[in-house]
Amino acid sequence: MKAVGIVAEYNPFHNGHAYQLAKAKQITNADTTVVVMSGNFVQRGLPAVFDKWQRAELALIGGADVVYELPFAFAVQPAHLFARGAVNVLVAAGVTSIAFGAEHAQLDFLALAKIARQKLSENAAFKNDYTQTYATVFNDVLADVTGQRLSQPNDLLGFAYAMALLDLGYADKVDLVPIQRKGADYHQTGITDTRIASATALRELMSQEKPASDFTDYVSKPAAELLAGGEQSKSWSEAWYPFLQYQVLTTPIYQLEQIYQLTNGLAYRLKEQMTRYTQADYQTFMTMFKSKRYTWARLQRTLLYTLLNISHDEMMQAMQRPYLRVLGATKQGRFFIKKNRDQVQLPVINHVTHEMVTDILQLDYRAGKLYELMAKQPLQQAMDTGRIPVFYE
Amino acid sequence: MKAVGIVAEYNPFHNGHAYQLAKAKQITNADTTVVVMSGNFVQRGLPAVFDKWQRAELALIGGADVVYELPFAFAVQPAHLFARGAVNVLVAAGVTSIAFGAEHAQLDFLALAKIARQKLSENAAFKNDYTQTYATVFNDVLADVTGQRLSQPNDLLGFAYAMALLDLGYADKVDLVPIQRKGADYHQTGITDTRIASATALRELMSQEKPASDFTDYVSKPAAELLAGGEQSKSWSEAWYPFLQYQVLTTPIYQLEQIYQLTNGLAYRLKEQMTRYTQADYQTFMTMFKSKRYTWARLQRTLLYTLLNISHDEMMQAMQRPYLRVLGATKQGRFFIKKNRDQVQLPVINHVTHEMVTDILQLDYRAGKLYELMAKQPLQQAMDTGRIPVFYE
Repeated sequence: MKAVGIVAEYNPFHNGHAYQLAKAKQITNADTTVVVMSGNFVQRGLPAVFDKWQRAELALIGGADVVYELPFAFAVQPAHLFARGAVNVLVAAGVTSIAFGAEHAQLDFLALAKIARQKLSENAAFKNDYTQTYATVFNDVLADVTGQRLSQPNDLLGFAYAMALLDLGYADKVDLVPIQRKGADYHQTGITDTRIASATALRELMSQEKPASDFTDYVSKPAAELLAGGEQSKSWSEAWYPFLQYQVLTTPIYQLEQIYQLTNGLAYRLKEQMTRYTQADYQTFMTMFKSKRYTWARLQRTLLYTLLNISHDEMMQAMQRPYLRVLGATKQGRFFIKKNRDQVQLPVINHVTHEMVTDILQLDYRAGKLYELMAKQPLQQAMDTGRIPVFYE
Repeated sequence: MKAVGIVAEYNPFHNGHAYQLAKAKQITNADTTVVVMSGNFVQRGLPAVFDKWQRAELALIGGADVVYELPFAFAVQPAHLFARGAVNVLVAAGVTSIAFGAEHAQLDFLALAKIARQKLSENAAFKNDYTQTYATVFNDVLADVTGQRLSQPNDLLGFAYAMALLDLGYADKVDLVPIQRKGADYHQTGITDTRIASATALRELMSQEKPASDFTDYVSKPAAELLAGGEQSKSWSEAWYPFLQYQVLTTPIYQLEQIYQLTNGLAYRLKEQMTRYTQADYQTFMTMFKSKRYTWARLQRTLLYTLLNISHDEMMQAMQRPYLRVLGATKQGRFFIKKNRDQVQLPVINHVTHEMVTDILQLDYRAGKLYELMAKQPLQQAMDTGRIPVFYE
């Protein structure tokens, strides 16, 4: 068997993703597509528009054979940690290649990453410095090698996958396959291509409460019906922000300082500014809180860690304990899982036990509970306990 | 000068309270009435219908000369701790007597308390056992002495004041003066007396959004206008409960176990039941959570400690650091404060400094912040910082 891995958020799944899956299979000559997908929260620190089960099901409908959940400890992180967690899951699951969309598929990402690693090892200041963004490193390398600077998000992610493969020692074992991106950019909000719209554009249509017929050009029929119902989670600014205010105002500063990433005086600054601007809404608060030192996404993630009360120690522990959580599979996917069962080096979670929710799964469980609490309609089922993987024939 | 002290919640202030103030002054021949009043949260663990500043002002209009805030660490506690904190404030402020409404004013509360203390000291099991309710002790003593059992709330509070005077060593210094209660019972929800309605009945009228004219028989004119606007704080069940759910679901069990009173497996039970009944509303949840072991009020207070993230250690520290916080005074009250200034043994807080909010005042400050966050309308001013006592001529 030959399986190609894909890293995704599918927020929500659309024709562009289906195209990517088909193309990845074709290029790599794989018989199985294996996806590792963010859970209920996406990389930018926001709740996904639909929960992980619904998004996994749409992915299976759209051409994925297995969908694994990227654990929260990697999913809601800057690109290099996100990439490392995702690559680790895919390789552990048994893929022989990893495909990704790129703005410039002609680039040799692995070669670039090797040069970058060399540069990093030469420069002591870069060593183990996880605050240095990949964008900067990538661009320095690119500038050296090609004389040009690039900053497009998928190229950057591809570079991060290459770095992760090297860091984890899998570069010789797994092929990295760039696929030229087609259609809409991530940041593009308008609809330009007849059959492909960006996830951002689709979320915009959802917020306008468009009917299902407005989505059928860009997503599968079941997806169109789901999207027509609007987001499952309430919007951050309207619904979640009061809980963040509550958390920050009632938590003593010495406890806030335990939160992951609330370091270097950020806990104090958060408490101080939120106390001063109690009446401000989320956007206004963020404008006050934002500084040159941190990106908006970084701060947003930090606020999510705060909302979820995730301590530095908990995050460190969770990052040291990756696992394979199956969200769903097709018949082919089940065959793949069964065949690889004996080679898998990570714990496999199909069914969440009582012990897991306070142990290996505690961050995802907590994130799922918050998602349940914040759903617009009461969810039919809990996010973790009592759930079994979705099967799609 | 002769000052009579009164312990109150004034939730809200009404004619019955005005009558009690006048009567207390008359019986004790005092020239000044000194009130110690709960802050933004009342003894049963609920938010007060109006904030402490508004309630203090209505008390001054109704006949109080000085209003001190009973610190949160005593205000939201069972009767014996509530009484101890209140008596301590009044005696420190310089009162020579403490008056209180009683269902049976003919009882000699101090004599009963002396017998109760004797009984307590004889029985080792009772010693330092703060879980034993005063109702039980009081009733055992009463049954012994008078052959009858009583359980009315104001009699019980009077007994608690007597116990506190003895415990604090003030019994010879301060007179305890019961005043026969007139008109409505605490628990009475209907309006029966033409000029006196219980606070419960008034809150009921408020929830029905009655016009000011419906209140003028029972409260002062400024109070009637305030009451016609409805409660300032949102109702616990509607607005506060989601925040409690959020807090419990996102806080790891070992952290919940640090919360004051979440002992003996209660933290586990709270987390377990709230996880199981995520979709239940507050009343339904409480029905599940309630057990024979704890009273409703006790559990409600415990949930408030949880909502405010108050640890056992913080509460112990706060109880060891009482203070006098002036919320308001009349001209006569200011004169009284000035005259007693040099004798006062506790720290006096007129103006909240930056240091206090993370130190001596941290629980009240936190409670005030939560109250601000939960107010129906954005409050004009913060509850603590930047406030000066209300003066009423």
